[in-house]
Parts: sequence; structure tokens; C-alpha cells
Amino acid sequence: MFETVLIANRGEIALRVLRACRELGVRTAVVYSAADADSAAVRHADQAIRIGPASSRRSYLNAAAIVEAARQVGAQAVHPGYGFLSEDADFAEICADNGLTFIGPPPAVMAALADKSSARALMSRAGLPLSPGSVAPVPTAAAAAEIAEAVGYPVIVKAAAGGGGRGMTVVRTPGELRRAYTRTRAAAQAAFGDDRVYVERYLTEARHVEVQVLCDSHGNGVHLGTRDCSVQRRHQKLVEEAPAPALPAAVLDTIAETALRGALEVGFVGAGTLEFLVDAEEQFHFLEINCRIQVEHPVTEMITGIDLVHEQLHIAAGVPLRWRQEEIRLRGVAVECRVNTEDPGRGFAPTPGRLDRFTPPGGPFTRVDTHASAGYVIGPWYDSLLAKVIVWAPDRELALNRLERALDEFDIAGPGVHTTIPFVRRVLDDAAFRKGRYTTGLVDRLLGVPGAAPAQRPTATPAPRPASAATPDVPNRRTR
Amino acid sequence: MFETVLIANRGEIALRVLRACRELGVRTAVVYSAADADSAAVRHADQAIRIGPASSRRSYLNAAAIVEAARQVGAQAVHPGYGFLSEDADFAEICADNGLTFIGPPPAVMAALADKSSARALMSRAGLPLSPGSVAPVPTAAAAAEIAEAVGYPVIVKAAAGGGGRGMTVVRTPGELRRAYTRTRAAAQAAFGDDRVYVERYLTEARHVEVQVLCDSHGNGVHLGTRDCSVQRRHQKLVEEAPAPALPAAVLDTIAETALRGALEVGFVGAGTLEFLVDAEEQFHFLEINCRIQVEHPVTEMITGIDLVHEQLHIAAGVPLRWRQEEIRLRGVAVECRVNTEDPGRGFAPTPGRLDRFTPPGGPFTRVDTHASAGYVIGPWYDSLLAKVIVWAPDRELALNRLERALDEFDIAGPGVHTTIPFVRRVLDDAAFRKGRYTTGLVDRLLGVPGAAPAQRPTATPAPRPASAATPDVPNRRTR
Repeated sequence: MFETVLIANRGEIALRVLRACRELGVRTAVVYSAADADSAAVRHADQAIRIGPASSRRSYLNAAAIVEAARQVGAQAVHPGYGFLSEDADFAEICADNGLTFIGPPPAVMAALADKSSARALMSRAGLPLSPGSVAPVPTAAAAAEIAEAVGYPVIVKAAAGGGGRGMTVVRTPGELRRAYTRTRAAAQAAFGDDRVYVERYLTEARHVEVQVLCDSHGNGVHLGTRDCSVQRRHQKLVEEAPAPALPAAVLDTIAETALRGALEVGFVGAGTLEFLVDAEEQFHFLEINCRIQVEHPVTEMITGIDLVHEQLHIAAGVPLRWRQEEIRLRGVAVECRVNTEDPGRGFAPTPGRLDRFTPPGGPFTRVDTHASAGYVIGPWYDSLLAKVIVWAPDRELALNRLERALDEFDIAGPGVHTTIPFVRRVLDDAAFRKGRYTTGLVDRLLGVPGAAPAQRPTATPAPRPASAATPDVPNRRTR
Repeated sequence: MFETVLIANRGEIALRVLRACRELGVRTAVVYSAADADSAAVRHADQAIRIGPASSRRSYLNAAAIVEAARQVGAQAVHPGYGFLSEDADFAEICADNGLTFIGPPPAVMAALADKSSARALMSRAGLPLSPGSVAPVPTAAAAAEIAEAVGYPVIVKAAAGGGGRGMTVVRTPGELRRAYTRTRAAAQAAFGDDRVYVERYLTEARHVEVQVLCDSHGNGVHLGTRDCSVQRRHQKLVEEAPAPALPAAVLDTIAETALRGALEVGFVGAGTLEFLVDAEEQFHFLEINCRIQVEHPVTEMITGIDLVHEQLHIAAGVPLRWRQEEIRLRGVAVECRVNTEDPGRGFAPTPGRLDRFTPPGGPFTRVDTHASAGYVIGPWYDSLLAKVIVWAPDRELALNRLERALDEFDIAGPGVHTTIPFVRRVLDDAAFRKGRYTTGLVDRLLGVPGAAPAQRPTATPAPRPASAATPDVPNRRTR
């Protein structure tokens, strides 16, 4: 095992990684921006290195500063968390060049998978079903129209380098296609420095089902079952659960086994997630693969008893997996909700501010991951994820009751600070959600958004590349 | 299920019971003393009824006021928590007379088991091995000397009505016996209004192993495995774990099965704990049975996935148990430590005061049960249990690492407030503890107490009877 790991992230995930390191006897060093000097990870780490100002481009996206910090503290490995540089193949390469183990897949594998169009091609070759559409980038509006005709409307035009719910446009009729195609290319060029796009059938009323895999560096892999993350607003997940509900066990098994086969086929190493849409006919379609820990990983931990960040560390240190697939046991149901400091009453606008009171729930089978405490100041710089509340129970009904109980206990107060808890409570009260029969259209229905839900492309995003001058350093960018 | 349950307790256990009720859709009412007006349970309950001043004799031990509160809120059942009236057969009787379901065993069973000497006789008849000694109360000093000669010194003289580590005296040589006998009788009369005592062989360097059972009102029962609670200071448990470590599985199974048989034999109903001492030869000896939820119940919850307070409610409502023994699965290892506001540097003296900072640990497989939050004022009235930190892991080594990590994170600060965390850290660092090879002598060894550890009679105590004028209403009485 490594002696010292550098944690190149902030917020709850920096603390999460720190906890895992400490439990394995690994020294921790954490980098931080000027805005995070008082954060929990900085307080608890064995060492903390300030690497730049609040601007994430100059701190958490600053590869050179991070590598220099790792050198300073004598770290052997870098854990990138999620967002920021976690899926940046160039950063992984820079780590390797500097003798550092990047805790993630090999750079070449990351590079191939970060490009959504290339990942789609690779996974298609590996036998994963894709939603109907183009595999390679589509060079002209005419070619796009041809594909759209072939697969049928509505379609979605997606940036190959996209992520975070940006760089995609839903097209409902042939008349809208040319403009959407041109606009998406321009937007992709501006956001990602890469204007390649592809075209897919747009699946409405589908479920977002993803599969957690662990693959070691010796060619072994296991899957840890499924998660449903269909509760999304503008492609940002709000509530996640494991296993995916209301689908036959045989369907879930097939999705999970197919995902693992795909991951092993493309040489994936580490903890990864393969995302799928499952349509009304229970057919599943590969969306993308995430090469890092996900925000929602705790629900999988709670049904398997496996600490995923421990496993990331073991895998990065070259340790072979300790389970065969038949030894993985899924037990009960876990549900997570994200508590964001946003005002659901004002279009989920971020509400920075100081927390006068902050008392998270506790008790049986209730986990809270948060970097906040009473007195914490939520700044305007980063995403608005304040805490994750995760519960477990033997069955889904009881898990939902437990989550409601936990959310009702959560005491958060500060001038001007709102949270998404009241909205999540509405989700939990929804009859379709309660039955497990919900789709990616659920949130828009609750919000009364007119027309179909813009719900196809789900969350789970590589951070923008740090080198790209076209990446605006906006406040509250979401990077997960 | 009940519509409304009255919670007749305070502190963390009142909140624990409240959580269980809420998760099962049961309305909650909680009684409170003047000292607890700002407590978490009062804040979260559907209704809260002030029943008296801080003095527990006039509030939490005031049966009449509690029954009146239950009537006021229309409760169908009373949950007594632990300590206070939880093992008071008279109170259970009063509840029944007032049409209230007491959440615990039938009053007659409680009455028989609360008397330690009668419980010993019952369990002996049910085939449980006792430590050598008298079964019936010993009427004279001469009779005591005869028993002591027969079983061999050291012996321990115990009050039949005793509890809480009071009313017992270790006797190492024949010359000390007469005085010890007379003194223990007098002390028992003063403390419990009952001077009956009995004599047992005193087992040094034994382990305190207990078994959790669940028995429904239809004659079904299961055991949920063992807990080791040998880490005790003056018969108060500090660290508890499940399952008991470093004993062969066959021994643990035998203890657990024997315990369940005993419980069913005596007509036990509800959640109960049978306590044993296990000697160096791995022979086990019944100590006593507790007819209520224990402080350390969460470690069993974490290895079984079963919510014990839910089960108490189901059983009290007449629901048959949902498992057969072979369906109970024990998974991994759970460890709990009690965080008391006491100063280990000054003989564990209580340190009341206001908490300026209070940030409990979180993260994977980490549970905190506490009624405290930042700003909470610890009064001088009740016991000093501030929080319980419970962790789970697939194996014991990792569980201990996780507990260390969690304790290191726990941020508690207030003028004059000390906690037992530094002392628990010493326990966790101890080589014998780390190997699982520790006995009830561990704490005294760490504290450098001269001579043998006064470690035989472990915790787990019925509260003093409210009606007894001889029960002093001391601050910081421990009732668990």
C-alpha cells in the first residue's frame, strides 16, 4: 500500500477519500484553494497544501500545481475524486511522467473512454447494445438528417467531448435538425474546444440504470450490481438507489454482466460505472462509462458491504481483487439523496451563505457524507453539494421511510441558505416514485415543466479540460 | 401497529426510539423533565409532555406522571428505553392496569427476572450453567462461609436486587467474609430496600459475553449472536463489539443457543440480553438477563441488518417474528464506543457544560447515536453518555481502524467539557485488545489500578425502583 496519497479534490469527496486512506493506514495530503482553507479535509489531513486561489482553473484544475504538491509531500499516488481532473487523461499522463500513480484507469484507456463517441464505438465492438444512432462523429447536417430519418425522431445531438449535461440538444422534428446540429457543434467548440458531435435516438420515459464495476490490474473484474439514478433535474442526479427497482432480476443481471464484460473488454482498471438507459420495453442501451468514483457510490457500498475507495486504493497499488463474482452479495436497499444549497422555489438557484445551524441526522443504517458543520461558509465558487444522506433497509419501503425520517431530522439554517430537501421530500412522496415505477421524466413532471422531459443524457461527467481556454470558470460549476 | 407510542426516557435512547417509531409510521409522544426542554427528542417528537422537574425521581421515574401523559396523548403503548423504569415490573403492571402496552416482557416474567437470585434459579432450572455458588439467598454469614469454602476463594457477595455495579463485594480470603457479608446486606437494604444477598465464585480474567434474543408473544424466538462487553470500568461498559472475538465459533454458537433456550423456557417476550462470563477455559456462566433494549444494541443491528427497536414494536403489537434462526445472517464485525462527558484524568469525574462545537464523524459504515448538537448544554442531572459511535467492517482489524478514524474526527469542545475519547483510544491501541484477547481486567490494567480487577459483575442494570425512598436521586446516576 502507498505510504502517502495526495487528494486532489475538495468538499465531501476529499473527506471521503481521506477517511479511506486513514482506515488503511495511509498518510494523507490534501490540496486546497484559498476558498477552502477552513474545510474539513484540510483540518483532518496529515498535510494540506494551498495550490491557488478560489478559481478552480487555477487550483483544482491546475495539474502542474497538484503534481508539485505531490512532490513536496512525497506522495506516491494521487486520488482525483470526481469532477475536476478525475477523468482527464492528460493529467493521468502527467502523473505517470512524474512517477505518481494516478488512482484510476491507465491514461490510454481513459483517453479512449472520455471521448463519448469513441467509448460508444469501443463498447459497441465489445457487444454492448447502443441506442440507435451514429457511432462515429457526424460530419455534416445532411448526414445527421439521414441518421435521424433512419432511427426516427426525436433524436439528440451530443458533443463527443461533452459532459455535465452540456453540449446536447433534443430535436423533435426534421425542421429543427439543421439549426440544432450547427448550434450544438458551436457550443461544443466553445465549451470543450472540440466540435465533434454525434446523433442518437432520444429515449423518453426511460430509466437511468448504471452498473458499478471493479477491475484490477490483473484482468479480474466484478460488478457490484445496479443503481437507478433516474431522478434528475437538467441531467443532475438528485436521488439514487441500489439496486434499480421494479425491473426483473434477470434484466438487472443481464445489464450488470454485460457491463462488466464491456469494461474488461476495453481494459478498464479501477472503480468505474457504466451508464445505461432502459426503455419501456426493458431494453437497455449503453450511454457512457465513468472512469472514477461517483457521487452516488455509497448506495452500492451499503448493499455490498464493500468500501469502494478502499478498493480503488488496493487496485491502484496492484493488489488483486479479493472476490469472485459469486462471492458478491447484494443485501437490502440503499437510497441516497443529495442535499444541495439551492432554492427549489427559484429555479434551483444556488444560495451561498453561512450555516448557523447544521445538525445531520444519525441513527440506524443512516450515513451522512458531508464536509460541512455549524459555522461553515458556503462560497459561490464550486458546486452546491452540501451533504449526501444515505440510508439502508432490508426493503425499499422501509428504506424510503428511513430516508424521510432522516431528512426531517436534518437541521440546516443560515441567512439566505436554502436546500433541496423540500424538493426531495416531494420526490419521496410521489406515487410513481414510491412504486419504483419512475423514469427520467419524473422531476420535470413534478416541476410542471411543459413538454417532454429533457431527460435523456444523465449526469456523470468528466470535468472540463484545464488546458482549454474556452472553459469558462463559472461559479457553481457542477463537475460530477 | 400502534397509532401513538409514548417514549418514557431521555437522551440518545429517546431519539433512537423516536426514529424507529417514525420509520414505522407511528406517532411519537415523549415525556421530558424541566432539564430536557431543549433536547433533540423533544424537538423532533410529534408531542412532548413535561412531567416534572430535573430530579429523575419526580420525572423519568414518576410512573403516575408517565401514565397520565400517555392518557393525555392517547398513546396505546409505552416504550421505556433503558434504565429508569425499563425493568420495573410494577411500572409494567401499572401500564397494563391503565390499558397501555408496556414494550417489554409480561410483568410477571419481568418480576421473576429482575430479582437476580430468582433469575439465577430459573435459568439454572432451564439448564443454563451458573458460576459455582448459591442459588437461593444466603441467610447467614456462616452459610456464606460454607458456600465460599465449597466453591473456593475469591468469591463475590451480591445483592439479589442489585444492579448498576452497586451492591456487590469481592472477598479474597476467609478472614474478610463475615464483614463483607454484613456490609453488603446493609448496603443492599439502603440502596434497594431489600437485603437479600447471594454468594458466587468470583471469576477473574473472564470475558463478558452476552447474547441478544428476540422472542415474540407466540412462543417463537431467535438469537442474534453474541457481543463482547468486557471493556468495563467499575462495571460500566465502555467499548462493545459483535460478535465476541477470539472465541471458537462452536463456543459462541453454544452460548447463543443456550441463551435462547433459557429465554424461551422462562417465557421471555421482547428484545432481551442474557449476560455470561466466559472463563479462561472457555466455560460460560450465566450472570443475568436484561429485559430491555441495551445501550450496545447497535453493534448487533450492524451485523444482522435487523432494527431491534422496530422488532420491539412489532413484538409488542403481537406480530410474529419474521425469521427462523437459520435465516439470521451475521456479517462482519461492529464495534461501539461510548463517548461520555467525563474526565479520564480525574477519575472519570463528570464534566457538565455547554458544547461550543459538536461535529460527529460520518462516512462509510459509521453510525452515531446522539441527542447532542452544537450549543447543547450537558446538565449535572443524568448520566454522562453524550454519544455512541458505532462502526462496521468486514473484519475486526478494519473495524478498529475505522473506529479510530471516526473518533479522531469527532470534534467536541466546550469550556470544562472532557470526554472519554482519549481513554477509548488507549483501549483501541492496547495490544491485547487489538488481538481480541482481553478480559474484564483490561481497563484496570490500563488505569494501573493496583490488585485484581473488580471486574466480575458487569453493567446492565435495572433502574432503582421509583417507589423506594431509599434510592438517592444522585446527579449522574448511571442507569444502564
